[in-house]
Amino acid sequence: MITTATTARERMQLAKDASRSIGLLGDEDKRRALLAIADAIDAASDDVVAANAEDLARGRTTGLSDALLDRLRLDAPRVAGLASAVRDVAALPDPVGRVLDERTLENGLRLTKVAVPFGVIGSIYEARPNVTVDIAALALRSGNAVVLRGGSAAERTNAALIEAMRGALRTRGIDPEAIQTVDEFGRAGARELMQARGLVDVLVPRGSAQLIETVVTESLVPVIETGAGVVHIVLADSAPVDRACAIVTNAKAQRPSVCNAVETVLVVRSAAERLVRPVVEALHGAGVTVHGDETVAALADGVVPATEDDWATEYLSLDIAIRVVDDLDEALEHIRRYSTHHTESIITEDAVEAERFLAEVDSAVVMANASTRFTDGGEFGFGAEVGISTQKLHARGPMGLAELTSTKWLARGAGQVRA
Amino acid sequence: MITTATTARERMQLAKDASRSIGLLGDEDKRRALLAIADAIDAASDDVVAANAEDLARGRTTGLSDALLDRLRLDAPRVAGLASAVRDVAALPDPVGRVLDERTLENGLRLTKVAVPFGVIGSIYEARPNVTVDIAALALRSGNAVVLRGGSAAERTNAALIEAMRGALRTRGIDPEAIQTVDEFGRAGARELMQARGLVDVLVPRGSAQLIETVVTESLVPVIETGAGVVHIVLADSAPVDRACAIVTNAKAQRPSVCNAVETVLVVRSAAERLVRPVVEALHGAGVTVHGDETVAALADGVVPATEDDWATEYLSLDIAIRVVDDLDEALEHIRRYSTHHTESIITEDAVEAERFLAEVDSAVVMANASTRFTDGGEFGFGAEVGISTQKLHARGPMGLAELTSTKWLARGAGQVRA
Repeated sequence: MITTATTARERMQLAKDASRSIGLLGDEDKRRALLAIADAIDAASDDVVAANAEDLARGRTTGLSDALLDRLRLDAPRVAGLASAVRDVAALPDPVGRVLDERTLENGLRLTKVAVPFGVIGSIYEARPNVTVDIAALALRSGNAVVLRGGSAAERTNAALIEAMRGALRTRGIDPEAIQTVDEFGRAGARELMQARGLVDVLVPRGSAQLIETVVTESLVPVIETGAGVVHIVLADSAPVDRACAIVTNAKAQRPSVCNAVETVLVVRSAAERLVRPVVEALHGAGVTVHGDETVAALADGVVPATEDDWATEYLSLDIAIRVVDDLDEALEHIRRYSTHHTESIITEDAVEAERFLAEVDSAVVMANASTRFTDGGEFGFGAEVGISTQKLHARGPMGLAELTSTKWLARGAGQVRA
Repeated sequence: MITTATTARERMQLAKDASRSIGLLGDEDKRRALLAIADAIDAASDDVVAANAEDLARGRTTGLSDALLDRLRLDAPRVAGLASAVRDVAALPDPVGRVLDERTLENGLRLTKVAVPFGVIGSIYEARPNVTVDIAALALRSGNAVVLRGGSAAERTNAALIEAMRGALRTRGIDPEAIQTVDEFGRAGARELMQARGLVDVLVPRGSAQLIETVVTESLVPVIETGAGVVHIVLADSAPVDRACAIVTNAKAQRPSVCNAVETVLVVRSAAERLVRPVVEALHGAGVTVHGDETVAALADGVVPATEDDWATEYLSLDIAIRVVDDLDEALEHIRRYSTHHTESIITEDAVEAERFLAEVDSAVVMANASTRFTDGGEFGFGAEVGISTQKLHARGPMGLAELTSTKWLARGAGQVRA
């Protein structure tokens, strides 16, 4: 039994109560707590792997796909990897207490805007045990309590990891109620988490587009929307063929299952004859299935006919859609219609055109002459990644620890009243 | 007829389409557009006052209260005041294009995080025509299109103001569809605005606590919650009597109808005998009705007995609640229970106690030895105020133009691919 609280609501209240002391912890206390958590995960490795074996056995009987079973699977090296990731988070600078603005009014009132923890961060995610550890570590590093709701398929694994993490907090004299799970309450627990306005300050869903859409639609708690990426690369009139092949292939095939992988390539008509065949051949060479419009199919061999659905699909696989557009205007129009506003890139030698693309495309990250795979907290140098926000409120693009903080104005006076 | 669009949805689509060109306007273009709007409001003064007279006449027959009629009323000087406020917004610096972060990766990829407009800002508010002009001006200054839904009681006044503003944009060669209203569609229009995820980027409700609660609960569009202030002042053991009287009276009586006015005073028991009587007398002298607990009633004359409801009430009137608490811990507990996390202040000579209060109170603005009336965009030096956010996501406390922008990462490369 993880805690004595018997309802999801009670668990969240415990997290909120704990958030008060967690929010006041200093940098060093939080760092040591995370190192203790990493050690505890290492020490619990056998228990975690055993719990995971139960989840895997249940998953096989309930018909989980091989891909899902693989995401769920933990062995000793993977558990060690989880602990190691916690140590990486421990080493990051404390985002709390940063002074973001300072001003002294004419009457002498001193105003300071400081970064403070949100309080309680909720996360709803699918059966990936690494997210359990990841989100808990990031939340604690930024002074927040956390309420987790992982997929039911990983329930025993998550429980073992959470027990280890809570035990580590206890040994450091820190309130273990700062890490909560509502997994045992199933879908009802997820619903209560989404309704917990006033107890939970922000909800970060992680997983499929469908999961995120459900949370965005149903949650009364403010949500940071992450994830889905129907990502575009535009090949402009002046795009060098080598660069086009290298960037498109890298953006698709280097790791096709992630949100920053390209899904659609738009080739400007004037460059189609020059670029389509070599780009398709490069993609074929990397094992990619190319879904193309009629022009693309006429210019290259082995192209699968694309339908309207292809333009809106986040394949997350070794598939790509290619369409020939009349000009940059039509490319921008296509992007407005189908993009999830995650990342888009243009390949061009024309600096004016590049700057137009950077200015006009309304996405979290807009690139010229680079692979979309760079949209990543690690690549951006944040040291950790909470997710990639595709919304415009609060955080946009790769989120680091700073995005898990809010702000507070402190006003220090000597009796000032308003005239 | 304001536009040819016949449904609320079409209006919002027009706003979104217009937001593309509005978002690319330069500082000077936006400034001139706002000056043209100010001139147009001045020029339309007679029409606006006439439209307002119709609203007032209808309001009288439908039984609007005198207070609501007064908020609704526009005469020539008030219309001139609206135009003047637009000129003030025009004079503010452009929040768009600010470089918020810059980094160059080892591979030479240059990353720049810039402030960009949200796109389309929605606002749902009550029958105050000044909000119509205010929100439109702030939205345009920050490069956003705007969809307005004012109270139906102000429909004709709002229509006249919006027509003037749209006309001014047209004369400047700017797409007038950047200013939209869904007023004619009544409650259905408000509902559609709250459902318009994907067309409207952020919704800023302004008005009563009930209006804001409805929007927060029903909106699928991300909301910035503003407003309600159950604001507390704590009088600590060492609070000087003169300072306590001056700050409490100022915070309550200088302008009782606003969200940063104090509603509850918590007096630490050790200071009660010394402070309660003079503070109550000072409040009585300012025409304030004091609702007090039994201890307060025993220490001062003319105290109305307070009930549980008083602690949770935002009076917005010349009423105040006073309670004696055992110590700072109990004061903090009371604040946690009843505060709307807007503004709280402590009066104390003890610097350690002041810093504890500043650290532990979880509100947008936390003060020591100052009147809560300073929580205000104008007082903070923002030049304009979009509202006072009581949420933790995106913006907290007084919001200026910067809070009406999102961000975008620009990545300028030379063919970089990920290893």
